[in-house]
Amino acid sequence: MDIVQYINENAVLLDNYLEQRLIFPEAPRRLIEALRYGVIGGGKKIRASLCLATAEAFGIKREDLLSLAGGIEMIHSFSLVHDDLPEMDNDDYRRGKYSLHKVFGGAMGILAGDALLVEGLRFFLSDFHFCQWVGQTKLLKILNIILDALSVEGMVGGQVLDIDLEGAEVDEEQVMDIYRMKTARFIQAPILCGAIIGNASESEFNDLERFGLLVGECFQIKDDLLDITQPSEVLGKTAGKDVKQEKATLVKIYGIDKTQEIMEKVFQEAEEILNQANRSFSLLRELTYFIITRCH
Amino acid sequence: MDIVQYINENAVLLDNYLEQRLIFPEAPRRLIEALRYGVIGGGKKIRASLCLATAEAFGIKREDLLSLAGGIEMIHSFSLVHDDLPEMDNDDYRRGKYSLHKVFGGAMGILAGDALLVEGLRFFLSDFHFCQWVGQTKLLKILNIILDALSVEGMVGGQVLDIDLEGAEVDEEQVMDIYRMKTARFIQAPILCGAIIGNASESEFNDLERFGLLVGECFQIKDDLLDITQPSEVLGKTAGKDVKQEKATLVKIYGIDKTQEIMEKVFQEAEEILNQANRSFSLLRELTYFIITRCH
Repeated sequence: MDIVQYINENAVLLDNYLEQRLIFPEAPRRLIEALRYGVIGGGKKIRASLCLATAEAFGIKREDLLSLAGGIEMIHSFSLVHDDLPEMDNDDYRRGKYSLHKVFGGAMGILAGDALLVEGLRFFLSDFHFCQWVGQTKLLKILNIILDALSVEGMVGGQVLDIDLEGAEVDEEQVMDIYRMKTARFIQAPILCGAIIGNASESEFNDLERFGLLVGECFQIKDDLLDITQPSEVLGKTAGKDVKQEKATLVKIYGIDKTQEIMEKVFQEAEEILNQANRSFSLLRELTYFIITRCH
Repeated sequence: MDIVQYINENAVLLDNYLEQRLIFPEAPRRLIEALRYGVIGGGKKIRASLCLATAEAFGIKREDLLSLAGGIEMIHSFSLVHDDLPEMDNDDYRRGKYSLHKVFGGAMGILAGDALLVEGLRFFLSDFHFCQWVGQTKLLKILNIILDALSVEGMVGGQVLDIDLEGAEVDEEQVMDIYRMKTARFIQAPILCGAIIGNASESEFNDLERFGLLVGECFQIKDDLLDITQPSEVLGKTAGKDVKQEKATLVKIYGIDKTQEIMEKVFQEAEEILNQANRSFSLLRELTYFIITRCH
């Protein structure tokens, strides 16, 4: 299957599923509107596809993983919603529309973000069939993988570094640390969740752990390249912000061409892990290639 | 034991434990400073004491519950840190000191809040001995209880209502809905966690479920009474804000005296549940009495 078609199919499948499940009769209506605005539609839902594509290599059907993949996208949206707030990266646009706090206000930006995290975890924890099917041991492993990726040594820590090092003199190692914490850990996490559910062996898990981090690095390097090479209309969010905010990026240190080279080297390293594997990870391979070649 | 002494002992025990465990060598130092500032010292840690006192009635020693009780207090602090942000209740003081965002800035107010939630869950999930001891079934029950209490139909939903109904014409039922969602659910949760770990029977669990919600209502009614009757120096946070922000409170509808009466009636209803129980909940009873008689 064409990988763009695969991504689009997953996104539609998940959007429909989220549409159906994100209904809370006892909750304030405006909060649920904001929650749905934050996660349904617009995004490519790459993290969900990474989870589904990994599990697929182990023979797991995507239909069985909708609550997990949906929860992962809600948690990812939590990070975007908070990141767009005025105190943070202060962006009025996201996914080709106004960012959540521009539509619903700043208080809702904070609270709907919090809700996306909490409800993202509950999204699969409250799916009785999913929980029965995967069993308690795997369920707790998945939870730990997700929470570890979000931790102070993961995404939240990376976002602090990202802000703290604005305007600072940084080297490649520092930038790669930010990339790994801020972005790569939560690209790695859905891949590892897929591996856990697929009953990956310990060595397969370890390989996918290294692979996931490299894919995450590629993702963030590509994001930074796009920020400087593409207009806002294509990105669906404000372009050129990294330079303006003096973000610590590889582009800032090395310029576009060398950054592109570094990304391709990281990609080759990631691909090599799949080449060595005893299993075919064709969708995962194509997704990774899509990540470094995408235009937005 | 004197209940004030019990609360203070628990708070010291937990502060020492948090001091030791909230060390993350790979995380940005400023984030960890903020995290520790947000949860160590200052607060009475009532929710932790409610968890410990409930478990104590089932013969569980508090020393075995430090990671759970500490995690609960971190999660509670997450809600306070976000609640104090300028977009929300905009308070510069908390627990007798500057609120977190006043010391560490607005971006850190958002991110350290997020971190307190994530690390609060990880606080007990990463405690190997605790997880082994309680087992997977109870661990997942505890997680679900906590996340349900924080949900869009719980705390986060309540905070949205609390903001949305500022200045609005409200009746008692609406106010009690806010109290239950915003506050009572996360007073109830630590009690239920204690019951789960104590192997409470189904009927005991159901009783404590009703009891916990009533205690939570008492807690919030008392909070609103204190807001109007005590000065900022005693409260450790800005007093008189409810009137200023036209918050939906019982005091606004009924004035101080009738609100006090309602609280005492709710308290009696809660106490009656403990009177009917086949087990002695003496610490829990005294804690509830402390909640409605405290001066800050």
